[in-house]
Amino acid sequence: MRDAVSRARDCERKEVVGLVTRESLVAEDLQRVRQVLQDVGKEDNELLVETIRHLFSRAGKEIRPTLVLLVGQLLTDVGGPLDDHLIDWGATVQIVHTASLVHDDTLDHAATRRGAVTVNAGWSGNVAILVGDYLFAQSAFMAASLGELRAMRLLAETIKDLCRGELLQLSSSFAWDQDETLYYRKIRNKTASLLALCTEGAAVLCHASPEQVAALRAYAVALGMAFQIVDDVLDITGDERTIGKPAGSDLRQGTVTLPVIFYLRDLPPGDPRRAVITGEERVDDALALLGASPALDEARGRARAFVAEAKSYLSGFPASPARQALLELADDAVARTY
Amino acid sequence: MRDAVSRARDCERKEVVGLVTRESLVAEDLQRVRQVLQDVGKEDNELLVETIRHLFSRAGKEIRPTLVLLVGQLLTDVGGPLDDHLIDWGATVQIVHTASLVHDDTLDHAATRRGAVTVNAGWSGNVAILVGDYLFAQSAFMAASLGELRAMRLLAETIKDLCRGELLQLSSSFAWDQDETLYYRKIRNKTASLLALCTEGAAVLCHASPEQVAALRAYAVALGMAFQIVDDVLDITGDERTIGKPAGSDLRQGTVTLPVIFYLRDLPPGDPRRAVITGEERVDDALALLGASPALDEARGRARAFVAEAKSYLSGFPASPARQALLELADDAVARTY
Repeated sequence: MRDAVSRARDCERKEVVGLVTRESLVAEDLQRVRQVLQDVGKEDNELLVETIRHLFSRAGKEIRPTLVLLVGQLLTDVGGPLDDHLIDWGATVQIVHTASLVHDDTLDHAATRRGAVTVNAGWSGNVAILVGDYLFAQSAFMAASLGELRAMRLLAETIKDLCRGELLQLSSSFAWDQDETLYYRKIRNKTASLLALCTEGAAVLCHASPEQVAALRAYAVALGMAFQIVDDVLDITGDERTIGKPAGSDLRQGTVTLPVIFYLRDLPPGDPRRAVITGEERVDDALALLGASPALDEARGRARAFVAEAKSYLSGFPASPARQALLELADDAVARTY
Repeated sequence: MRDAVSRARDCERKEVVGLVTRESLVAEDLQRVRQVLQDVGKEDNELLVETIRHLFSRAGKEIRPTLVLLVGQLLTDVGGPLDDHLIDWGATVQIVHTASLVHDDTLDHAATRRGAVTVNAGWSGNVAILVGDYLFAQSAFMAASLGELRAMRLLAETIKDLCRGELLQLSSSFAWDQDETLYYRKIRNKTASLLALCTEGAAVLCHASPEQVAALRAYAVALGMAFQIVDDVLDITGDERTIGKPAGSDLRQGTVTLPVIFYLRDLPPGDPRRAVITGEERVDDALALLGASPALDEARGRARAFVAEAKSYLSGFPASPARQALLELADDAVARTY
């Protein structure tokens, strides 16, 4: 492991020449998070060992543990590896995230995720239900082991939020005339709440002030909103190679997203294009219509506004490489293409 | 609520003439547990409100909260209502139990439970996955709110045990030649662990000594083993009216239970009756064969041995109505017909 001096030097250099990327700031601690994840379920029964190994073998974007580590660096003295409890919290949030993906893929009968087979497709829906339950319980166990009741309650409340978001998505699917407000409530529950768990939990574990905790939570909520809107745009503009799943999945499942809400709002009454969007037969035509419409840019504009809001919550923290990385992470949320 | 004096008088009378039943010992506190359960999810989205109300509208046997309350009475001064945290713990274990039933019924595609429609059948498998997740998270939230880290960790570890048990059941289904050891491991995980959560958690919340905690845990583990064996016997001898589900469900799903293990062990090699048991076509014939065989009594004998073991762990506690009720509860586990 690199020593504190060389790490501090990196940080200094960063401020001068911008050489230190976000990746290098958290690289070593992310490796420690991955190590913790490698140990999950490894002494357990065979189905758990093989499914969990499969789930953690592809790293993905690791945004959630990265948020934990950057908040840890923001709030503690930079210059060395973070405390173990922040590493464990990074692993905990990644486990919650993974559990929710396993159940979401089961709900959607999804065959692939990030280009790899899902647990429900590769094993069975029943195995996926149980592996998801096991991982949720593992996250609760790890949170309890950190000895911070507030982080525990936050974790449990967040899992309830994820369920609320998914249930709202279920009950509002194919409801094409829903408004922006319902959409925002849905994505706040199903996406933003989990990013807020990362930053708020990390801040609590660092014994931050109530103002700091609130600001870091608000940052993550706004970031999560932006993130999900961009995800929903990419489901229209992306292709399977870059987004790791077939484009148009949302339309096919009747999940009404922001670009669709804007597009339908602007159609004259009785316009035949409405049937193309809301019918399930012509998804490619629907994607072409949406792709050529101003609705996409309007949705991207909303995402940019959320990013600006997210960044504003960091203004009270002194300049540091971690703060800079959190600001850039927000910008990247809208700039990304996958 | 009845006052402490009349309650203490009841207890006294019990020791003399045995008039106070287990039901009356816990009746008022069980009502408080039900009240806590009525409030779960009630401010939440419509699907949660209606499914959770449905789930908690039929009380069932309430063995798990009863165990919590009796342990509370055993370890604290009898003579009045129990502390709120024991009531909350009683509700917490009932929520865990309900969550696991919701997911189990989804795994089994069960249409009814205790004579009522299941969430997966009455709503959908997707709703059932999410409602189960929500209830597991709710139990973690309530455990965290009790402020006792050990109870929290115990809860999380128990949910992992339930998953282990169900995964073991999945991976060993239709494996007709499994032995008693595998069967015991399976039911220890899927049934006994949850009863142990009730008593161990209640003992921890009462600040019992390590010896008392261990004894009350061991009592519940043995009780749980007996309980599941009897359940598996009833799946062969019961009828839908009394057991609330069609008889022979285990055979149909390939779940290998103790009477079946004993029956197959005793068949001569090549005996055609083996095919009747292991084939899925002639469940009624299989039930008749099993019902007329000594395998059922052998299984009941194992259950009685577990009950005797369970009762032995209570010998270190002074005589009291609560201790008497725990002893009788163990006897009832084998005597019951539903």
